[in-house]
Amino acid sequence: MGALLMLLGALMLPGVAFALYFGSHDEIPLLSAAFVSFAIGGTLYFSFSKQDQNIRKREGYMIVTLSWIFMSVFGMLPYLFSGTIPHFHDAIFETISGLTTTGATILNDIEAMPEGIIFWRSMTQWIGGLGIIVLTVAILPLLGIGGIELFVAESPGPTSDKLHPRIRETAKRLWLVYIGLTFTVGVLYYIGGMNFFDAVNHALTTMATGGFSTKNASMAYFDSAFIQYTAILFMFLAGTNFTIIYFGLMGKFKRVWKSDEFKAYASAILFLALIFAIPIFYYSGQEFEKSFRDGLFQIVSLITTTGYVTADYTAYHQGLTLLFFMMLFLGGSAGSTSGGIKFVRHLTFVKNTWLEFKRIVHPRAVVPLKINGDRVTGKIITHIMNFLLIYLMIFVLGSIVMALMGYDIITSFGAVATSLGNVGPAIGQVGPMDNFAFFDPGAKIFLSFLMLLGRLELFTILILFTPFFWRAN
Amino acid sequence: MGALLMLLGALMLPGVAFALYFGSHDEIPLLSAAFVSFAIGGTLYFSFSKQDQNIRKREGYMIVTLSWIFMSVFGMLPYLFSGTIPHFHDAIFETISGLTTTGATILNDIEAMPEGIIFWRSMTQWIGGLGIIVLTVAILPLLGIGGIELFVAESPGPTSDKLHPRIRETAKRLWLVYIGLTFTVGVLYYIGGMNFFDAVNHALTTMATGGFSTKNASMAYFDSAFIQYTAILFMFLAGTNFTIIYFGLMGKFKRVWKSDEFKAYASAILFLALIFAIPIFYYSGQEFEKSFRDGLFQIVSLITTTGYVTADYTAYHQGLTLLFFMMLFLGGSAGSTSGGIKFVRHLTFVKNTWLEFKRIVHPRAVVPLKINGDRVTGKIITHIMNFLLIYLMIFVLGSIVMALMGYDIITSFGAVATSLGNVGPAIGQVGPMDNFAFFDPGAKIFLSFLMLLGRLELFTILILFTPFFWRAN
Repeated sequence: MGALLMLLGALMLPGVAFALYFGSHDEIPLLSAAFVSFAIGGTLYFSFSKQDQNIRKREGYMIVTLSWIFMSVFGMLPYLFSGTIPHFHDAIFETISGLTTTGATILNDIEAMPEGIIFWRSMTQWIGGLGIIVLTVAILPLLGIGGIELFVAESPGPTSDKLHPRIRETAKRLWLVYIGLTFTVGVLYYIGGMNFFDAVNHALTTMATGGFSTKNASMAYFDSAFIQYTAILFMFLAGTNFTIIYFGLMGKFKRVWKSDEFKAYASAILFLALIFAIPIFYYSGQEFEKSFRDGLFQIVSLITTTGYVTADYTAYHQGLTLLFFMMLFLGGSAGSTSGGIKFVRHLTFVKNTWLEFKRIVHPRAVVPLKINGDRVTGKIITHIMNFLLIYLMIFVLGSIVMALMGYDIITSFGAVATSLGNVGPAIGQVGPMDNFAFFDPGAKIFLSFLMLLGRLELFTILILFTPFFWRAN
Repeated sequence: MGALLMLLGALMLPGVAFALYFGSHDEIPLLSAAFVSFAIGGTLYFSFSKQDQNIRKREGYMIVTLSWIFMSVFGMLPYLFSGTIPHFHDAIFETISGLTTTGATILNDIEAMPEGIIFWRSMTQWIGGLGIIVLTVAILPLLGIGGIELFVAESPGPTSDKLHPRIRETAKRLWLVYIGLTFTVGVLYYIGGMNFFDAVNHALTTMATGGFSTKNASMAYFDSAFIQYTAILFMFLAGTNFTIIYFGLMGKFKRVWKSDEFKAYASAILFLALIFAIPIFYYSGQEFEKSFRDGLFQIVSLITTTGYVTADYTAYHQGLTLLFFMMLFLGGSAGSTSGGIKFVRHLTFVKNTWLEFKRIVHPRAVVPLKINGDRVTGKIITHIMNFLLIYLMIFVLGSIVMALMGYDIITSFGAVATSLGNVGPAIGQVGPMDNFAFFDPGAKIFLSFLMLLGRLELFTILILFTPFFWRAN
């Protein structure tokens, strides 16, 4: 954790360059925050570096959870030091929304913020995305901590298609894919007409499926088909299993097509985009290409849990609003930077439902469930279906908590679904054109907790509240 | 099915007595409907009585589904013949709402209806309750049709605690419990101050967990603590596994306390009633006893899926409204007349969730799940969790269909949840003080389908849409 804090401090420094270039006078707060993170991180690192570093699986969960909390606490320092976000509950919300790649914001006017701080805000998302993909596989093993348990703990999905037997090598490759794609999309944004600052920021938040923008109008500001289609493509890639992308880049297309999750993910997006284009065309009165693009953009943005918006998807028809709301529960692929439930779990549920009918008709037959051609054990099926039910139960209980705090039912549903799924926009008072500024401090802290819970796949945090975790073996 | 139709016709006749007594001039429509049911039922019965009567499990599902459809079609004849409900979509909605013991109504003014028709309306619920408990175990075996498969098909829950090895004897006992309790609650209602007609009608719809009332204001009309507590007690009993009631009546209390489902069901109701009394007291400004009674009544009515109301539970606070809405997803016990998900399934989910954490910490340990002291197999756990997920998925898809038809999101959620759970009242435009008259014909047919789907535990109907059912073995 000491090393993580030092890394966090180091990643605050690029913002200083922007602060100086733009003369936005936020270099001192950034440098101070970096210094504090470095000093405390360094103290921790060198004080405990000679301790026994053999950790067990149970400790792994604790470390992952604590790492995210530590990063959140130190990550909010630039906001507090600069006075741009003066209150604790706002600063921690914005930081956790960043690190969990959610993208919900409490800022009423993003464009009034100094550039250094805005860059740090985008950087928190990129760090969060990196954290999900690689941090626990690449950084922690470097510190001599066994990474495989942590990978299991933090892996965004139930399957981890083995890219390479050595976990460090795997991490390095995924890390290169992540950086490479971030660079590529940044260049494309720049070519499309964004200025250098906007291109860099949006590159960071696109690949993290984060959704923080430098503009109040989000991606709608960049009224360019090239930029918006570029965003669609790279959100789609960021929501794809990075192992699959790696195989694709290596030309191993057979491996790509063998992935049931990728096929389900890609075809669901295409299917939904085609279905939605017509009613959006009908209700918006725009030309067909723009209607199709609006539908596709919003669908990809919600499914990959990015959260950019180019159109108000609640403005067409309440049936469509509800359909968009339901996309908050989809999520991208396991092994991507996206949050939410993810397709491999939905696929398991749908396949098992189908087979369940076969089992009723043929009670004595053995009816195995296969994903990617491999048989999925009953234990894993049970675990996945339990995950789905816990996810929905937390959504329900969370919505009740929000409604008891006094928010209307639709807003409660929306805020909880979008926080738990790490998406960003939702419905009700937190629709695509709104922000989270109006919530009470208690609600902001509660939603921040839900973001962390969703980001760490529920179990990682929830297990800390069970006796099984605390009891000695 | 021929025999069922003859029975249906026979049960239309008691209404004739009320029609003549009150001079409500609806005896001719009732007699005509009874005659048509008898004639067609008799023709079917005698035409096919010499056919091969060995049926297989697969045919069982088809028979159960078709029986409910046949009963619905013939059950609506009194409404159509009398002209009290002249439209097909309204008449089929009211009949299916009755037979499935849902209790949602399209009648704007129940008190203006002739007494014979009102009695038939209550009777459809009692028949539906009987159908769920006994019909398939008692009537069909008498016809020489193997009942055990059908009992599995229509059993309201996944467990069927064997009361007696011979299924006909079991059916007879449950049937006696059902009739005995109906008689008892009727007498108590009469003692409490209801007139004879109201007491009979409410007795029929209480034990069926149906919720049809003779009054527009439902049970709120009977502003008597005695009547309302009587209703609470008998709704509670009607939502209890009838086997458990039988054991209780036989003095075998050990068997009663051995039931995990009964303990969960009883303690959930008590806990919720105590929790709700204080906010209802605070918001309603009534005296404490009435606040407690209002809370308890509404909770028991929703959880047992009866649907009587004595207070507008959406009038307190939106957090409480949402909590009441969530009760639509609870349901009573397996082996009762209640609809919905039912406690044994929730219990399986909650217990498995707890054990799932244990399995994560101790991946090599065998961690069995026990209910009533018996181990539940992995196959059953998977099946139950799949049921829960399909239930929720149908709720979501159903709500989307309703929203696309143009209803607001809250009303769509409410109407679908209450139909699928066979409850009656909900939230939004179908709150406890509203009715279903305003829906379009298409929405009424769709909601009727959801009632049937929920009543027959989803799988019974859904399996007819799979190739496994239709493929020859």
